[in-house]
Amino acid sequence: MKNPPALDQLISSLKVLPGVGPKTAQRMAFHLLQRDKAGAEKLVRALERALTHLTHCERCNTFSETPLCSLCADEERKQHQLCVVEMPADLIMLEQAKCFEGLYFVLMGRISPMDNVGPKEVNLDKLMVRALDGKVEEVVIATNFTAEGEVTAHMIAELLKDKGLKVSRIARGMPVGGELEYVDPVTLAQAVYERRELD
Amino acid sequence: MKNPPALDQLISSLKVLPGVGPKTAQRMAFHLLQRDKAGAEKLVRALERALTHLTHCERCNTFSETPLCSLCADEERKQHQLCVVEMPADLIMLEQAKCFEGLYFVLMGRISPMDNVGPKEVNLDKLMVRALDGKVEEVVIATNFTAEGEVTAHMIAELLKDKGLKVSRIARGMPVGGELEYVDPVTLAQAVYERRELD
Repeated sequence: MKNPPALDQLISSLKVLPGVGPKTAQRMAFHLLQRDKAGAEKLVRALERALTHLTHCERCNTFSETPLCSLCADEERKQHQLCVVEMPADLIMLEQAKCFEGLYFVLMGRISPMDNVGPKEVNLDKLMVRALDGKVEEVVIATNFTAEGEVTAHMIAELLKDKGLKVSRIARGMPVGGELEYVDPVTLAQAVYERRELD
Repeated sequence: MKNPPALDQLISSLKVLPGVGPKTAQRMAFHLLQRDKAGAEKLVRALERALTHLTHCERCNTFSETPLCSLCADEERKQHQLCVVEMPADLIMLEQAKCFEGLYFVLMGRISPMDNVGPKEVNLDKLMVRALDGKVEEVVIATNFTAEGEVTAHMIAELLKDKGLKVSRIARGMPVGGELEYVDPVTLAQAVYERRELD
């Protein structure tokens, strides 16, 4: 017995979602069709709206429905600090951590030659224009501490180095509350190498 | 029905082990007596040997069967760096991380006023003598990033500050390989506050 083509197509389409394989896609499809048609319709409308209305903030490059996102439009934020992150989720994490009062730039990715993602794909041109607006004094690089995130950080630092801007990288080390016995050896080694002098 | 006193005493004695309550102690006791008498005998001998032969290394304070532990006796280690840790397990982690070639001092605890553990109980007198041997130039404090570990680090730094020694603390920040999306907010905030300038 074969599935009707429309069902096959739905199942196959659900597989575009990250982490969703054939079995999960099939279960999702059956759920939507049998139990939650209203939910499925809501999903359709949300996808349509996102596809038509969402664009990138012209300053920070994050997703926005307006030319300027609400954060960039907020004049209370410190204009002289610019924090560079890979994805909007990282920006949200930093905002939740309440540790940064400046503005952001969202790369929407990280440099990854293996996946054909180069400087252009992560909007480094746009970042340069943003960082050199004359108001920014410090660029805080907060890309992930993965191989790709580190390459990206290095390239950004290289590009900004000669422009008279202060460039910094968020710290690597022991997690707050962390115990030596339970941390991985690479992180522990880094915490020793990057130890800070106490005065 | 009551247990024979010898059994009750064994169960009660097993409760000295950390994390072992009455039920676990009872299960352990039954297991040893019914299924693994050889193991129980081995445990007796090991405990006896440890109690008679184990002492503290006179230099670094870790457990040792000889006056000087093998690490302190190793002349290849750098004599000018002294790393202070809470427990022998921390020393082992640092050795596995292969990031430090100096010598250690093991406090055998951390300052914890709530548990009546003060400077004396964590051997700060012995540490002072060790650190001021004339060869040590830098003391790297690698106590845990818990409340007690931080208090201990602070007190050690205060004591050593005026003695002309360089005192440093292993870094706090993002774990190596860490992604912003999955790290806790306090650690992320710390990583931003302790960002390092790139040159």
